[in-house]
Amino acid sequence: MPRYRLTLEYDGTGLAGWQRQANAMSVQELLETAFLKFCQETVTLTAAGRTDAGVHALAQVAHVDLERPLDPDEIRDAVNYHLKPARVAVLEAAEAPDDFHARFSATGRRYLYRIVNRRAPMALDRDRVWAVSRPLDAEAMHRAAQVLVGSHDFSSFRDAQCQAKSPLKTLDRLYIARAGEEISIRAEARSFLHHQVRNMVGTLKLVGEGKWTEADVATALAARDRSAAGPTAPAEGLYLTGVSYDPR
Amino acid sequence: MPRYRLTLEYDGTGLAGWQRQANAMSVQELLETAFLKFCQETVTLTAAGRTDAGVHALAQVAHVDLERPLDPDEIRDAVNYHLKPARVAVLEAAEAPDDFHARFSATGRRYLYRIVNRRAPMALDRDRVWAVSRPLDAEAMHRAAQVLVGSHDFSSFRDAQCQAKSPLKTLDRLYIARAGEEISIRAEARSFLHHQVRNMVGTLKLVGEGKWTEADVATALAARDRSAAGPTAPAEGLYLTGVSYDPR
Repeated sequence: MPRYRLTLEYDGTGLAGWQRQANAMSVQELLETAFLKFCQETVTLTAAGRTDAGVHALAQVAHVDLERPLDPDEIRDAVNYHLKPARVAVLEAAEAPDDFHARFSATGRRYLYRIVNRRAPMALDRDRVWAVSRPLDAEAMHRAAQVLVGSHDFSSFRDAQCQAKSPLKTLDRLYIARAGEEISIRAEARSFLHHQVRNMVGTLKLVGEGKWTEADVATALAARDRSAAGPTAPAEGLYLTGVSYDPR
Repeated sequence: MPRYRLTLEYDGTGLAGWQRQANAMSVQELLETAFLKFCQETVTLTAAGRTDAGVHALAQVAHVDLERPLDPDEIRDAVNYHLKPARVAVLEAAEAPDDFHARFSATGRRYLYRIVNRRAPMALDRDRVWAVSRPLDAEAMHRAAQVLVGSHDFSSFRDAQCQAKSPLKTLDRLYIARAGEEISIRAEARSFLHHQVRNMVGTLKLVGEGKWTEADVATALAARDRSAAGPTAPAEGLYLTGVSYDPR
């Protein structure tokens, strides 16, 4: 069966996240239903990152096996046609080797977390950012974030429902910068624990508010206990922006 | 009566535009209703630019007279509270001189028009951009746009319903640039005719597609006839991004 790699954009608002659920619509179900309409095949999509409810993607990657070979551009256009008016779009479809696996072949995942730091509520970017009205010190947040970069036991930033075998992860990059009223947080790693990015952001916000210091973040990390770190930042500010694979 | 200047952000999707209408909700009505709830006064707001249905604003400016002086930050927060969950937000409220007029005192208006030029439909920015699937040459669009810069009779780009006394306008800047799949068109002038930006964009898209040349744009401008220019670009790509006033 020919395998295809899909690059996907979606608006997570109102969806249960990537993974198919019994009682709520998911990104996976929207796509699998569109494939069924397009080529009358019951397919299963596997994604690089199983994003949570409300989380967005600018370039999620998934793979799918079809019964017979099809032109990749035809797959992209036909699936997009059958997705309408859902807020999921196939940006690119490409032929992939049989051993390509969107999740297990991935060597890196990149996330963006958007905070808009202003007094007024969001008129245009509602459900797209975390609106924080209290002034945040983005430089202090960036400095404290560097405590988290590297190989650590991230149990303090791990959701109770996380299914990863180990809490040990290597965070390659955590970069925080302000541009006007917007604060961008960019995180890169081979893989992340469940809610890790949102828990790191919720903790670093405490630093931005002046409630926590860099040393408090180090203490929270060392505690290896979820209750030692800050709250979980809301889903709507989070975007999966890209997935890396070894070039072959 | 004390006068206040308001800076406003709004999502024009599903609204009839700035101006109050008998049978459809407008930005003006949403704001005037919020003021009524806040200070039990029936007020009239006057805006710098009467944006059309579906057009957005990042920094529209309006003025309002209240019966008694109030703290500007209190006005901002209270009106925002009473606007919920509407997609209109007061970014700033400030005291203004009695002779400040949001519309007549304005010395410049700036618009941004966003095109996303890709095959896939929009998942995240639906109702925020004009999605154009055919490849566009943004550099050719920019060169042709320079034909329109300066003082001209813009009748070819003027809507039949335009109420301006004269079709003579001075276009100070029309700048078009691509960044990845997005093409930004930035227009600046003291004032614009009704639909002028959208009609210029619709015409320049013909250049981007290779159907029209720079000379065709010059011919359309010289014709002083709406039917000589291209179609009107859709409202959802247009943003009023700022209004200038003489410093006093």
